[in-house]
Amino acid sequence: MAKEKKLVEQITSREENFAQWYTDVVIKANLIAYSNIKGFMVIKPAGYAIWEQIQSHLDARFKQTGVENVSMPLLIPESLLQKEKDHVEGFAPEVAWVTHGGMEPLQERLCVRPTSETLFCDFYKDDVHSYRDLPRLYNQWCSVVRWEKETRPFLRSREFLWQEGHTIHATAEEAEERTEMMLKVYADFCAEDLAIPTIKGQKTEKEKFAGAEHTYTIEAMMHDGRALQSGTSHNFGDGFARAFGMQFTDKDNTLHYVSQTSWGLSTRIIGALIMVHGDDSGLVLPPKIAPVQVMVVPIRQDAEGVLDKAKELREELRAAGIRTNLDDTDKSPGWKFAEQEIRGIPLRLELGPKDLAQGQAVLVRRDTREKEVVPFGELAERIPALLETIQSDMYNRAKEHLEAHIYEAASYPEFKETITKKPGFIRAMWCGDQACEDQIKEETGATSRCIPFEQTKVSDVCVCCGKPAKHLVLWGRSY
Amino acid sequence: MAKEKKLVEQITSREENFAQWYTDVVIKANLIAYSNIKGFMVIKPAGYAIWEQIQSHLDARFKQTGVENVSMPLLIPESLLQKEKDHVEGFAPEVAWVTHGGMEPLQERLCVRPTSETLFCDFYKDDVHSYRDLPRLYNQWCSVVRWEKETRPFLRSREFLWQEGHTIHATAEEAEERTEMMLKVYADFCAEDLAIPTIKGQKTEKEKFAGAEHTYTIEAMMHDGRALQSGTSHNFGDGFARAFGMQFTDKDNTLHYVSQTSWGLSTRIIGALIMVHGDDSGLVLPPKIAPVQVMVVPIRQDAEGVLDKAKELREELRAAGIRTNLDDTDKSPGWKFAEQEIRGIPLRLELGPKDLAQGQAVLVRRDTREKEVVPFGELAERIPALLETIQSDMYNRAKEHLEAHIYEAASYPEFKETITKKPGFIRAMWCGDQACEDQIKEETGATSRCIPFEQTKVSDVCVCCGKPAKHLVLWGRSY
Repeated sequence: MAKEKKLVEQITSREENFAQWYTDVVIKANLIAYSNIKGFMVIKPAGYAIWEQIQSHLDARFKQTGVENVSMPLLIPESLLQKEKDHVEGFAPEVAWVTHGGMEPLQERLCVRPTSETLFCDFYKDDVHSYRDLPRLYNQWCSVVRWEKETRPFLRSREFLWQEGHTIHATAEEAEERTEMMLKVYADFCAEDLAIPTIKGQKTEKEKFAGAEHTYTIEAMMHDGRALQSGTSHNFGDGFARAFGMQFTDKDNTLHYVSQTSWGLSTRIIGALIMVHGDDSGLVLPPKIAPVQVMVVPIRQDAEGVLDKAKELREELRAAGIRTNLDDTDKSPGWKFAEQEIRGIPLRLELGPKDLAQGQAVLVRRDTREKEVVPFGELAERIPALLETIQSDMYNRAKEHLEAHIYEAASYPEFKETITKKPGFIRAMWCGDQACEDQIKEETGATSRCIPFEQTKVSDVCVCCGKPAKHLVLWGRSY
Repeated sequence: MAKEKKLVEQITSREENFAQWYTDVVIKANLIAYSNIKGFMVIKPAGYAIWEQIQSHLDARFKQTGVENVSMPLLIPESLLQKEKDHVEGFAPEVAWVTHGGMEPLQERLCVRPTSETLFCDFYKDDVHSYRDLPRLYNQWCSVVRWEKETRPFLRSREFLWQEGHTIHATAEEAEERTEMMLKVYADFCAEDLAIPTIKGQKTEKEKFAGAEHTYTIEAMMHDGRALQSGTSHNFGDGFARAFGMQFTDKDNTLHYVSQTSWGLSTRIIGALIMVHGDDSGLVLPPKIAPVQVMVVPIRQDAEGVLDKAKELREELRAAGIRTNLDDTDKSPGWKFAEQEIRGIPLRLELGPKDLAQGQAVLVRRDTREKEVVPFGELAERIPALLETIQSDMYNRAKEHLEAHIYEAASYPEFKETITKKPGFIRAMWCGDQACEDQIKEETGATSRCIPFEQTKVSDVCVCCGKPAKHLVLWGRSY
């Protein structure tokens, strides 16, 4: 057991040092490797397979709402980036600039896209003429570059993978409907596929997207009580439309500006998966998006019939649509267990000579480590049911954790004490003045995560300045 | 019919001007839009949906051979690009350079990847230590940038989408086996999924990939007789391994350099799809990769029951796994027919009040325009069979076209006459001297497409210089 112990001991415990635990899991689960450019990472097969699952589930949800995929250029001319004032102010300081193509200096420098609003606008303005051309519901899966100063795998990197949807509509109402619809798609995807409960709300003026009229967000709580913004949906009104001249002829033969939205979810969400569900043995992946759902581990695989039966079971489970692998390497069973646990594979199927003789296998849940013995003939039926139970148990545990770590604060001293002593979110009232938001951030490290859609009243006055309150705000320290 | 005629008349005929026909089809079929940076294109939904089909079919074929997907950084430090001498000479003149990150100039400039050999080497050198770590069979789907002077949609652009596989192996034999295996994967994919026959062979020294020991290629023939290199597979030997220090400890406890391959297929292949199968009415897509396989077009959709039945049929066909859409817009049937034809949708299902009364629909093949009347109850069975027939007919026609346009030339005058008068490929002998290859290109515009794996003898001497011949070479003018 010395070696097995070593494998697990390489992971710092969550309680000891959560940040180090996170890095250990990311590396030991083989999700990424650092490249030799700061903030650019190699996403290894185990990490990329998770992203492929996320893409496939989320893309299907998009397409159900009529979204179509496209591919926009990687580079944006500086003049195009500058067309919308707030947008360029938000992004210009953090983009990478291409100045030479081949041996020649470029006449105009080009930035590597940090996001593609300007490209979509430039395209739509020539492509859309009539109300018959609307709505346009386009999305792309790609990578973007933002020159961040501090970087951490998945959570903040200079290059990250994401999807960005960009839609235009004939009316402001339709655009608002789409903005809310896509936030719901994200929230449902997080809840149902990733087993991550989130809180829906609106970003404050200070925290909204550069150029947006308003930004909606889903906020998730990590195991350490910190917030992670997990997906955002922006309503641009007709701001970009006016800057880019995106007009259409309506049924009444008059020219109107289009109304516009954009919405994105990135590889950050893999950080959320790790920090919501992971434990001291490594990753714990929800079955729906686990690239491998069952790992078959033979015990004494040299014993007659064990390996053959293990292979047979693998094929049988695969035929039943269960993503199943077999670890038939020459490593010890204990080592294989540890690896399967680090990788977060939801179920382990153990099969030894004794089991073989008795016509049964042992199933071990990754999330609870509960074992159960199942006759061979019942595996193909029992495993899907068990995977569903794991999925819903994981969601329920995450939801309990979230609810148990949301506090209320009616006064500023209470706010300060809570944020210091109790990891989690705080529900507190706000006057709507950015000065209070700034002060709270400065003095406590907590930021306004959102103005939750579900508004209740904690008190009548702003937790910071004591003036009449306008909104209930969810506060928290964040990633 | 005036409007319908107009729609089709916007496409130049193939015979009149093949290049203009190609551009017309690309634009009228809504595959792309030009962006405002030369050589960068917007791939629109109809074009991107084809790429998604290509990805899904090819990716499944890769995974069957054990390949895993990863994501490598977008940018390459200049010093890394320079590590392998031939490689940097091949690519440095045509890359885009990032010189600033945010407001700061970079200490070392970074190029946007034109291909990722150097990134994979840099990663593998730290990640692989023992023979137990081998082989590594990684692939990524991404976009790359090469600063081309002349650009055409799909065929040659400054940014294009592709996949690039990069593998490392313990022995030269294994690497060679993988190089050949992936070429076969490409050839099978082209033949079976795209209905495009290709010729397999080896590139000459002059035409091989920068840094490769040798390059294999599949060459397809377009309708105008010109060649399009459709996929390449490179064996690097241990050249990059030595340049990057990619070593592993073998079973005998000695250090060895790894052997390496890479292989790629890009959105160029969409150009091949268009130019192999398209006709004067637009695209003709092979059923296996057509994003929409059947378009239901109601005739007199205002007549009682027609639209309801059309919707019912759409649902029935979808349930049978057939990718089916319904055009229930208020356009005229003729206009809808023309649009379906331009888009290359393999089958049209027409349904009018008369058909409804008789309990039948009319199926019209896009490739041959043949019609057949099928009772409602037999559609779900007949359509898949018909799609298979279309798929194999398209392949057979393309193969006949290819074979009918391959000529032999034993003498240089014959070569020159053939290349001038008969569009197609020429099989002719070559001494192996690059001077002859250069001379042929200079004087005839034909390049060596490959040294075909299937070698036969046209004569004993080089078609250009008359010295003893070493290889049969396939020559042709190319895209």
